[in-house]
Amino acid sequence: MKPLQSRYWRLDNRPKEFIVDDTLSLNTETIDDLADGHVLLRTIYLSLDATNRLWMSDMEELYIEPVGLGEKMLGFTVSEVVETKNPKFALGEYVVGIGTWSEYQVSDGTGLYKFKQPENIPLADAFTVLTVSGPTAYFGLLDIAKPRAGETVVISAAAGAVGALVGQIAMMKGCRVVGIAGSDDKCAWLKEELGFDSVINYKQEPLEDALKRECKDGIDIQFENVGGAVLDAAMPLMNMNGRVVICGLISMYNSSGDVLGPRMFHNVIMKRLRIQGFVVLDYADRYDEAQGALARWMQMGSLKYRMDMMTGIENSVVALQKLYKGENSGKMMVQIGDEKQ
Amino acid sequence: MKPLQSRYWRLDNRPKEFIVDDTLSLNTETIDDLADGHVLLRTIYLSLDATNRLWMSDMEELYIEPVGLGEKMLGFTVSEVVETKNPKFALGEYVVGIGTWSEYQVSDGTGLYKFKQPENIPLADAFTVLTVSGPTAYFGLLDIAKPRAGETVVISAAAGAVGALVGQIAMMKGCRVVGIAGSDDKCAWLKEELGFDSVINYKQEPLEDALKRECKDGIDIQFENVGGAVLDAAMPLMNMNGRVVICGLISMYNSSGDVLGPRMFHNVIMKRLRIQGFVVLDYADRYDEAQGALARWMQMGSLKYRMDMMTGIENSVVALQKLYKGENSGKMMVQIGDEKQ
Repeated sequence: MKPLQSRYWRLDNRPKEFIVDDTLSLNTETIDDLADGHVLLRTIYLSLDATNRLWMSDMEELYIEPVGLGEKMLGFTVSEVVETKNPKFALGEYVVGIGTWSEYQVSDGTGLYKFKQPENIPLADAFTVLTVSGPTAYFGLLDIAKPRAGETVVISAAAGAVGALVGQIAMMKGCRVVGIAGSDDKCAWLKEELGFDSVINYKQEPLEDALKRECKDGIDIQFENVGGAVLDAAMPLMNMNGRVVICGLISMYNSSGDVLGPRMFHNVIMKRLRIQGFVVLDYADRYDEAQGALARWMQMGSLKYRMDMMTGIENSVVALQKLYKGENSGKMMVQIGDEKQ
Repeated sequence: MKPLQSRYWRLDNRPKEFIVDDTLSLNTETIDDLADGHVLLRTIYLSLDATNRLWMSDMEELYIEPVGLGEKMLGFTVSEVVETKNPKFALGEYVVGIGTWSEYQVSDGTGLYKFKQPENIPLADAFTVLTVSGPTAYFGLLDIAKPRAGETVVISAAAGAVGALVGQIAMMKGCRVVGIAGSDDKCAWLKEELGFDSVINYKQEPLEDALKRECKDGIDIQFENVGGAVLDAAMPLMNMNGRVVICGLISMYNSSGDVLGPRMFHNVIMKRLRIQGFVVLDYADRYDEAQGALARWMQMGSLKYRMDMMTGIENSVVALQKLYKGENSGKMMVQIGDEKQ
């Protein structure tokens, strides 16, 4: 193969609190060889996700090996196979998985999944809904929380990529859905476009009062993406046999200190609560099920979502910072390469 | 019926921290009438349990209606029917349930269960193991934690009435059992008499270090009776897909402040933990199942337990205080009346 230049982001320093200038640097490498069994991938889209923050940390307990210092930063990507010395991957195929923040990537196929773009769904949409946010929402809600019609579901970071899908799936199951978000624009979108029963802008009023007002029959399912004060406020309102799904604790990922459990913890006994954490990667062998259902809902027009797409690998860090500041308006993505060349 | 004098304990003040002199008072009432549908019960044994502390509080969220100020204190009791105007209850039958701290009690039968003493088991033993501690241990371990052979089970307050039974049932299921207790005497009993694999006297050494040493393969099930620092120490050691059964949070019942959840809470995601609370009263319709198994194990000699029996209703408060100070050596009970008159 012809040697090619590939830009990539390298993790130089573990962030203490925020992602700052010297956390990551943009570098260039030359790729000039492809060993047997390897493929060359051209990155098309990079997904920026709350969980990326964890991959940069050196917390003692992590659900994956963190990115090493001096190594390429990792993220969920969709790529095209542009050279192949691996019989399992054909030229032009799309693959998804945890990839590097880079224009090109050489891989032996470990951790990569072939991705078949469903009919009538653009690649960016299919990638973000079907391979990242969607399965998280699908399994977290249906497999962990197990909603029943008529139940009240509260979702934190409800306008986030996962939260918005959780709410829509919960409504399909007959639940009453209350979304918590951090701007009037986000709240309006949830209520008017997505049809959430109720929304709370936590920056405009005390969360506890608002939750009490909007959850007059209590909370059956708390779908938690944030943790901290949000979860604290929900605990006393949980109904008997309520379920608290711990999908993310983004309010705590920037803290280098201890991650505290919910206050008013005695409710766990009094209300017979189940608090359960999950990681969507564990469901790899059931992705087909989730993707089939999600693709069908997308084709029917039953799932609404927004994307906040930036262009160019050089904007990856800015995109991640935007996500952590809550300034994104939709699923945060970076288009690194064209769809087809 | 002939009027009779009955002494009873009345809740006068809600305890702030400890049970003090003016919390409860011993009074006498005259019972001289039995309406249709009612029974007169003579109390034989009163069980003192950690959860009694909650029934005296006015916490906002409680799993039962707290005892009202000026009302008779409640506890688990076994009584004999000594007069009956209710066709469902015959003279001489034993009944168990949540009764009053009193020598006699008039009841319409609500919340009472007939109790058949199994062969070859003394009444006190049958009462405490089969109706209070046993079903709690049985359902908490088997129904909530769902242990598998080879797993490591850590039990706090392991020498307590529930904890000791949990450990013995877990060993029958092939688990490795680590007990935490607060005295060398309790630890020796757990290890030498009950056969626990490992014991930790939390008053003798830092709990975190001891747990790390005794749980080299991590913790699969944390059976929590204590909460607070004990649960904090266990969290980082939890294994993937671990279960934390919240049976009690006795370290927090004396606190009038906020009840904090476990620190290092991110482990809930990283290790995909399930934290679940339960109240044994919910299993009323499955008590037969638990009692059948427990009675069989008792008759086989497979369950060991100790009772700390005081005599006379006047000692009920002293008995409760002894329990909360951890000074009891076995299931704390008070014999209020003779077994048969």
